[in-house]
Amino acid sequence: MSKLVIVGSCAFDAIETPFGKTDKIIGGASPYIGLAASQFKNVDPAIVAIVGEDFPQEYLDFLSERGINTDGIEIVKGGKTFFWSGKYHNDMNSRDTLVTELNVLGDFSPKVPKNYKDAAVVMLGNLQPSVQLSVIEQMDNPKLVILDTMNFWMDIALDELKETLKKVDVITINDEEARQLSGEYSLVTAAKKIQEMGPQFVVIKKGEHGALIFHNEQMFFAPALPLAEVFDPTGAGDTFAGGFAGFLAKTGNFTFENMKKALIYGSCLASFTVEKFGTERLAELTGDEVKERLHQFKQLTQFDIELT
Amino acid sequence: MSKLVIVGSCAFDAIETPFGKTDKIIGGASPYIGLAASQFKNVDPAIVAIVGEDFPQEYLDFLSERGINTDGIEIVKGGKTFFWSGKYHNDMNSRDTLVTELNVLGDFSPKVPKNYKDAAVVMLGNLQPSVQLSVIEQMDNPKLVILDTMNFWMDIALDELKETLKKVDVITINDEEARQLSGEYSLVTAAKKIQEMGPQFVVIKKGEHGALIFHNEQMFFAPALPLAEVFDPTGAGDTFAGGFAGFLAKTGNFTFENMKKALIYGSCLASFTVEKFGTERLAELTGDEVKERLHQFKQLTQFDIELT
Repeated sequence: MSKLVIVGSCAFDAIETPFGKTDKIIGGASPYIGLAASQFKNVDPAIVAIVGEDFPQEYLDFLSERGINTDGIEIVKGGKTFFWSGKYHNDMNSRDTLVTELNVLGDFSPKVPKNYKDAAVVMLGNLQPSVQLSVIEQMDNPKLVILDTMNFWMDIALDELKETLKKVDVITINDEEARQLSGEYSLVTAAKKIQEMGPQFVVIKKGEHGALIFHNEQMFFAPALPLAEVFDPTGAGDTFAGGFAGFLAKTGNFTFENMKKALIYGSCLASFTVEKFGTERLAELTGDEVKERLHQFKQLTQFDIELT
Repeated sequence: MSKLVIVGSCAFDAIETPFGKTDKIIGGASPYIGLAASQFKNVDPAIVAIVGEDFPQEYLDFLSERGINTDGIEIVKGGKTFFWSGKYHNDMNSRDTLVTELNVLGDFSPKVPKNYKDAAVVMLGNLQPSVQLSVIEQMDNPKLVILDTMNFWMDIALDELKETLKKVDVITINDEEARQLSGEYSLVTAAKKIQEMGPQFVVIKKGEHGALIFHNEQMFFAPALPLAEVFDPTGAGDTFAGGFAGFLAKTGNFTFENMKKALIYGSCLASFTVEKFGTERLAELTGDEVKERLHQFKQLTQFDIELT
């Protein structure tokens, strides 16, 4: 089994879309990353997170039953779990955040379980950069550190983020964030500048427009699968990261050629997440469904032009 | 030689970008379509257009020298050529139109040269739908009619457009136009509804986010090549259409599998157009450069996941 350490928020989400609304359901980056990574049979993913006493045992069991180690999920006595509530607009591409209650997440000091410190791959979900750095420092000798971040940290903790990036192999950010971090409009130039900050692989997420990965002079593009209906986009980006990290943990091959496949797996798994509310679709996903959808990705992207 | 009839505006463009500005240069849809199609050795493209007496012989020679038949370009004595002037913003994704002088284009009644009426492929650039229809009616028995249009005609001549679409095999429009024409937000659903209007193949252009083609339950995606520098986006969409139409004229194969390749050729040629002002880059393009760039498209999109 290939160990994969996943650090990220664990939350209650309340989601409203044009198709309906949910009560508080399990959310946050780490469950999506974990569920995506657990699709790979020989991967042993462990979530490092923090929740309050209000977090139901049933949610922890839900993760465990899918092969996700939850020893690193700290439960704060008397504390309340991070809560997010949002409402999507009719186009499903924009949303309003209705409520953000940081709660116990504000004091998150992640502790990697002792028997996962030797994991080869670490996936750092979006968190304060110093918190992400503290995880890297707890690891024995990680072969691949993947970091997700967002514009918020570029606004309030840029120096801290840059310090952390020096220890990172792969960064995943969206297109606007790549532009903000690099000061460059062209994504090609932005990716080049970000590589100079540390990460040798730069993944740029463009939502419904797919994702790019850059490494030196190489680049690769994975489209998002065009869907007749997007039911709930929550967690698509984290699912993408989890599929990417999970495939790399499974294969232990961190070449650019293999990262191409990892990007396709990430995009493939993310295309399921948006079909139902929250983690619902991901939780019920079968290997045959994944295979069928990978076939759709091939149909969507592969062509046969001979260059003689 | 495979004949290709191209109908579209022929214009003077004056372009300003953050990198500089031009005086009046050759522009309009048909020169870009023609120059892209003329990249295919065994294609015999003919432009049907209208210009004023002010249109320099040197521009007509420029097209002829690249193997484009100009017998169908009507020169109106005492008339002035369509003139467009625009200024691109710093992000190169939005622009202001500074001047539009329709001039002779307002009375355009295209006449397909007699010896091109037997062409198998017709590419109708963006024009009033009734004008596009009049061209279809002049053709003997076209095997493939491709139509480009825009939101302007949906606003002021929707019924006329829908009449024309009944005679069309392939429509090329951008994502917002597909949504407007179909009343559907999802591009998958939009493409389905547009197929019911006539065109069995629906190409949806997403600019820097690439292009999709839909046919029944099949779909295929061609990315735009991410570039370090976009110099002038003018004509990229028409170059794309010209590459698409040119490849189909060359091969005479109108299956979905072959249209995948046509879409890649379109995207490939468009990636050159934006590198210099106007038609400049397209005019100097060599076959080796095209081959090299097709190789880049393969690197960008092809992956190797075995599905057993």
